[in-house]
Amino acid sequence: MLVNGVPGNSISIRDRGLLYGDGVFRTLRTVQGKARHWDLHYLKLQRDCGKLGITCPEEALLCSELDQVLAQHPDGVVKLIVTRGESARGYTPSADAPPTRIWDFSPLPDYPAEWATQGIKARICSLRLPAQPRLACVKHLNRLENVLAAAELRDEQSCDRELAEGLLLDTEGHLIEGIRSNLFMVSQGKLVTPDLSRCGVAGIQRGRVMAWALQHGIVLQVRDVMLEEALHADELFIVNSIIGLWPIRELEQYHRGHFPVAKQIRQYLEEQCR
Amino acid sequence: MLVNGVPGNSISIRDRGLLYGDGVFRTLRTVQGKARHWDLHYLKLQRDCGKLGITCPEEALLCSELDQVLAQHPDGVVKLIVTRGESARGYTPSADAPPTRIWDFSPLPDYPAEWATQGIKARICSLRLPAQPRLACVKHLNRLENVLAAAELRDEQSCDRELAEGLLLDTEGHLIEGIRSNLFMVSQGKLVTPDLSRCGVAGIQRGRVMAWALQHGIVLQVRDVMLEEALHADELFIVNSIIGLWPIRELEQYHRGHFPVAKQIRQYLEEQCR
Repeated sequence: MLVNGVPGNSISIRDRGLLYGDGVFRTLRTVQGKARHWDLHYLKLQRDCGKLGITCPEEALLCSELDQVLAQHPDGVVKLIVTRGESARGYTPSADAPPTRIWDFSPLPDYPAEWATQGIKARICSLRLPAQPRLACVKHLNRLENVLAAAELRDEQSCDRELAEGLLLDTEGHLIEGIRSNLFMVSQGKLVTPDLSRCGVAGIQRGRVMAWALQHGIVLQVRDVMLEEALHADELFIVNSIIGLWPIRELEQYHRGHFPVAKQIRQYLEEQCR
Repeated sequence: MLVNGVPGNSISIRDRGLLYGDGVFRTLRTVQGKARHWDLHYLKLQRDCGKLGITCPEEALLCSELDQVLAQHPDGVVKLIVTRGESARGYTPSADAPPTRIWDFSPLPDYPAEWATQGIKARICSLRLPAQPRLACVKHLNRLENVLAAAELRDEQSCDRELAEGLLLDTEGHLIEGIRSNLFMVSQGKLVTPDLSRCGVAGIQRGRVMAWALQHGIVLQVRDVMLEEALHADELFIVNSIIGLWPIRELEQYHRGHFPVAKQIRQYLEEQCR
């Protein structure tokens, strides 16, 4: 709805975001004309652009564009895409092309309220994430693996409408993340989240949960987690900027109905919203 | 220049090609108003769309659009992108969205003619390709690895302007392909090309070279090739639809000046062009 500061809903077919997925994005929850945790989103955008060698647009410029979007759509979901812009034919990025800034809005999805309190049903996707340290953590536009995993989930959902998220393993069998969320495990009083140095997307809510653990003196481990270990955890939960926090009540043989730590963290995440 | 049959150079910011790299593409060499090997390109497009679950546009429709492009631009490079089209927010592909068809034209790149006869200088990129069998062989729009590898090559080219291509290894050290080409090795009278069942893009020129070997009774092996083995080969060469065939004259300690098999195959590839 806003492309490089101009109202519009199209981009050039020569934009590298389309040609190669050569860009990054952010998904913002907006409430009453404000984007939650904009400061964290911008920091992450800078870091992700840096990893790809894309010039990150200035914060002041993005803020003024965001204000235009919020003036029209104060509540819902705002997506910001920054691509490497246009360039001559071929993979080689030119050093001087200005990045493309794309803003779009959509209404807040209508998820059942009890998913946040009673927990969700999740499943393990058969698609495995391979290790690509050069792209790990980055929320870039090469998301075909998420699309294929979401298509798997959709096929399962046609038989089981309660399924809310698919979890992804890497090729070694480590649990990495949800299709659209980061994952945490509570085990023996410790909070554990998968190491994302080889694959996966490190979202800002993951960072917020980690900060919560540090503030509250909870032991936090960022390390490899095998599926088998997770299925014996006391609690499992997923987070992202749109859903907030959903505990997992069912995942294969794992069944839980009580999520004391997840509940505490969910309240923290919600209270902290500005 | 043609989007869904209508002259234009833009697509929706909600197109999944931009949002997720959810699409495939073809790069066609066009000569005197004809696209070389259109039949092979269309077969490959069908196969690639099939792998991603994208409905491949009918051949007759694409041919009529291609004719419109060729009428204006008879000679050069034509790119065809087919994306999964637009959909609601989120990774899940909707079953019924019509795919987006995008055509673009660019002039033939001005490569030195001696690269085809005297060979090129290549280097090994430090970026490694991980195994993702669900996407292997497919020429999809998730090409950030190629972009990062091309950026590496560009940095080297600033010191060595003769560098023409970067070669990619997988995480196990197998030689897979060039950044924008497929790779062959001639060794003891056999023609060898890397197995692409775990990663890499299987281009149509690769298929044509393989067909040549079969027609000429040359032993053809599609298998894993370690870099070390390739550096002792009699000949190495790369192919794609735009460059045709370039022998490699220099790659690390590998130096060759004589390419009898590559020359024969290059002539075959050129003669067969319609």
